[in-house]
Amino acid sequence: MSEQNLEALRSQIDALNLEILRLINERAEVVNEIGKIKEKQGVNRYDPLRERHMLNLLRENNKGPLNQMTVDYIFKQIFKTALKQLEAEKKKELLV
Amino acid sequence: MSEQNLEALRSQIDALNLEILRLINERAEVVNEIGKIKEKQGVNRYDPLRERHMLNLLRENNKGPLNQMTVDYIFKQIFKTALKQLEAEKKKELLV
Repeated sequence: MSEQNLEALRSQIDALNLEILRLINERAEVVNEIGKIKEKQGVNRYDPLRERHMLNLLRENNKGPLNQMTVDYIFKQIFKTALKQLEAEKKKELLV
Repeated sequence: MSEQNLEALRSQIDALNLEILRLINERAEVVNEIGKIKEKQGVNRYDPLRERHMLNLLRENNKGPLNQMTVDYIFKQIFKTALKQLEAEKKKELLV
């Protein structure tokens, strides 16, 4: 009985993972668009004030069960790694 | 003109962040449910085979622009931190 429950819950996790995957990729596409505009403006991609704004908005809207420390940590990783990959690709383009 | 575009893109990012927040919290709730079942069964919460299965599924379904290294990294952080917080709360319950 609980083995069946376990399987059902794991299917839920798999579905949620795929939905999160879709959203972080969609997010990366928008970050890329922002990068292009900033490049034209000659502005740095990394903007600590904007990052603070995003984390504050997440804080105001976090209903748990994850606490704010966990949410901050996960999103900082998302911010950092997405930017890192996009910058690496930009560098490759420049080398071609 | 591009300043307006920038604002629109940032609003998109904010909306995506909140949607990701909602999903990682929903995910944590399911992880908690799984933890309760595993506890009854006397099984360890951390399951490296299950983690491998989840990462493989994400790999098969990743359409980019984030590459697999980035996706693996972000999800490992999500897996780890969610579990860590839930274990810490469990410990607190035991101390009460």
